[in-house]
Amino acid sequence: MGNSLCVTFTELKVDRCTDQTDARPATGLISSWFVEDLVLDRPDAKANHVIQCIGSSSLEKGKTFAEKYCPKASPTVYGTYEEVYNDPNVDCVYVGTPHSFHKKNCLDAIAAGKNVLCEKAFTINAAEAREVFAAAEKKNVYVHEAMWLRHRPLVAELRKLLFEDNVIGDVFRMASDFSLLIDTPNLPDTSRYKDLKLGAGTLLDLGIYPLTWSFLALDPNTPEDSERPKILATQTHLHGVEVTSSVLVQYPSTGRQGVVTSTTMSGLRDPVVCRIQGTEGHVDVEGAAPALPLSFTVYRRKAGTKNDTKDDLESKKYDYPQIGRGFIYEADNTALDIAAGRKESAIMPWKETLRVMEIMDEIRKQGGTIYPQDSSV
Amino acid sequence: MGNSLCVTFTELKVDRCTDQTDARPATGLISSWFVEDLVLDRPDAKANHVIQCIGSSSLEKGKTFAEKYCPKASPTVYGTYEEVYNDPNVDCVYVGTPHSFHKKNCLDAIAAGKNVLCEKAFTINAAEAREVFAAAEKKNVYVHEAMWLRHRPLVAELRKLLFEDNVIGDVFRMASDFSLLIDTPNLPDTSRYKDLKLGAGTLLDLGIYPLTWSFLALDPNTPEDSERPKILATQTHLHGVEVTSSVLVQYPSTGRQGVVTSTTMSGLRDPVVCRIQGTEGHVDVEGAAPALPLSFTVYRRKAGTKNDTKDDLESKKYDYPQIGRGFIYEADNTALDIAAGRKESAIMPWKETLRVMEIMDEIRKQGGTIYPQDSSV
Repeated sequence: MGNSLCVTFTELKVDRCTDQTDARPATGLISSWFVEDLVLDRPDAKANHVIQCIGSSSLEKGKTFAEKYCPKASPTVYGTYEEVYNDPNVDCVYVGTPHSFHKKNCLDAIAAGKNVLCEKAFTINAAEAREVFAAAEKKNVYVHEAMWLRHRPLVAELRKLLFEDNVIGDVFRMASDFSLLIDTPNLPDTSRYKDLKLGAGTLLDLGIYPLTWSFLALDPNTPEDSERPKILATQTHLHGVEVTSSVLVQYPSTGRQGVVTSTTMSGLRDPVVCRIQGTEGHVDVEGAAPALPLSFTVYRRKAGTKNDTKDDLESKKYDYPQIGRGFIYEADNTALDIAAGRKESAIMPWKETLRVMEIMDEIRKQGGTIYPQDSSV
Repeated sequence: MGNSLCVTFTELKVDRCTDQTDARPATGLISSWFVEDLVLDRPDAKANHVIQCIGSSSLEKGKTFAEKYCPKASPTVYGTYEEVYNDPNVDCVYVGTPHSFHKKNCLDAIAAGKNVLCEKAFTINAAEAREVFAAAEKKNVYVHEAMWLRHRPLVAELRKLLFEDNVIGDVFRMASDFSLLIDTPNLPDTSRYKDLKLGAGTLLDLGIYPLTWSFLALDPNTPEDSERPKILATQTHLHGVEVTSSVLVQYPSTGRQGVVTSTTMSGLRDPVVCRIQGTEGHVDVEGAAPALPLSFTVYRRKAGTKNDTKDDLESKKYDYPQIGRGFIYEADNTALDIAAGRKESAIMPWKETLRVMEIMDEIRKQGGTIYPQDSSV
């Protein structure tokens, strides 16, 4: 199949040493991971992705990136993003910059008539997202928030088991935490973990994943028909930057509750990245982080048992083969959407991106986190 | 030492089969566990407890109880509680009835001039607690909420390590959950798990323990000077009864956050009954339930490490020998207080009991749980 997806890569701002073997989405790594996944050999690929060009703030950085992450491809390397947007061979621009640049990057690409796949968090706030979607609608281009987690086959299978097969009865509660140890006080003021203009804080960076798990695990509706949950949130700040968020999510129609937490004060991580509890058992999702689930186990209460001790439960594990880091699913979805002339992804439609941004706006409002961008729109 | 503590035992309302080997405080068991602990052989006892009499709603039930739980003691068995209150040999009445009876039992005992040790939750709401303390003040008797968890040596040692030795740096977050599987819909309407008049719901029964852990783990102050945390709470109801509570606790002065949850929809229980996280490591409290901690492990980040993976942490486990089920500590504290002429326990003073009841009132207000008693006071 000839659907190609062209990548723009913007300046790497790696502000800490990060282990590339785990799922921690430090800035810059997302771009490299995404590109590495795109050029994987896949005999049964649903789409063929062509890295047409790489855009960077400097030619040198762009060349180094291209040599390192896609040595077998031969992308044109540009020293400006504008050249990417104006390249007639580019079908779709991938935006992998920090959150605070997404609005401008998206608007610039859209203005040039390009389709866009833009990293999460989609923008700094819902108002920015509305601006981007309004521009996309006007230009009649495709825009898609790259929430890779939602595209994983694991997620679709899990939701089928939960809401069609009711394997754990009626779901009533979930919990997920994303922790990453970052020495905020000792970072340079220009770090995206410290600079409010860059969207510093745990919520948009980490919390969005456990928050997404609460939507996936508690709401059986399609992304187009998502129910709006009640939100109760508290946040703690260090040097003006939000370093710990705790959020309660509750669905009015079912009473289902989610406990969603994130912090940059600790790197402690449970192998269970999300736990979902139902009236007849529970599901533990295992992985490297809420962003990178690798398997899940369904624990069902045996007939006639009265508690949930180990002996009372029968378990079945669902493993998922790793293809790269797992970015290929969203890339395939994007390529097929564009080939079919669609303007939105059915898995992450505009309405759902807006809902997530509005919920994060609400969390920040309750938690007391204000970005400079909040007042400018 | 000759301090004696006399026990009144009120009608057992065991409405489900409960395993006595764990810490699940089903009605009635609290009384039996307490009495069993009182009559343990303890060569180094701080106080000698005499079970002077047992009061029950029927002589027969009282006799069965006395034979079963204190066969070596020879308590007088009364078929009414009034006889207990009027027994001149009784120094202190232990109230082990369901929450909803505490106010009346306490007021009756106080009216007869007796000192009182009354089970948690102290009353149904703060207004009832104020009535009891007002009566106690007038009669100049001792009243003490039997929150056994607070009296455990494990708790004092842990708080010293957290707030004097700062073993995990600055505490910033904790989480604790108490789950117990109860088939609410199929219980008789008169069950204390179903009848709102009896205080049905998870919060007063189970949630009070993880809530107490949030106070112990996040607030270094003495119970007399406890800081009032911000509370965000949501509750879910089944057949009108609260079956799941999730509460965020945040301290204004430090930003420390607690996630406190309870449910009767699942019996699933983590061996870690409370996790406390700090800037230099974390503490896992292990046990049968948040009500029954048996040990804790301090995990400290090794110098020079950047994450919190297993290899980055050094650990030290603190084990506590079990003496009975652990009710003896609150009993000793009570006996010594009474012997010294004190009217309150320094570990659980009236002010602290009131604060806890007010916080639970606030949780129920936000969560939408109303008891008939809430409007009558």
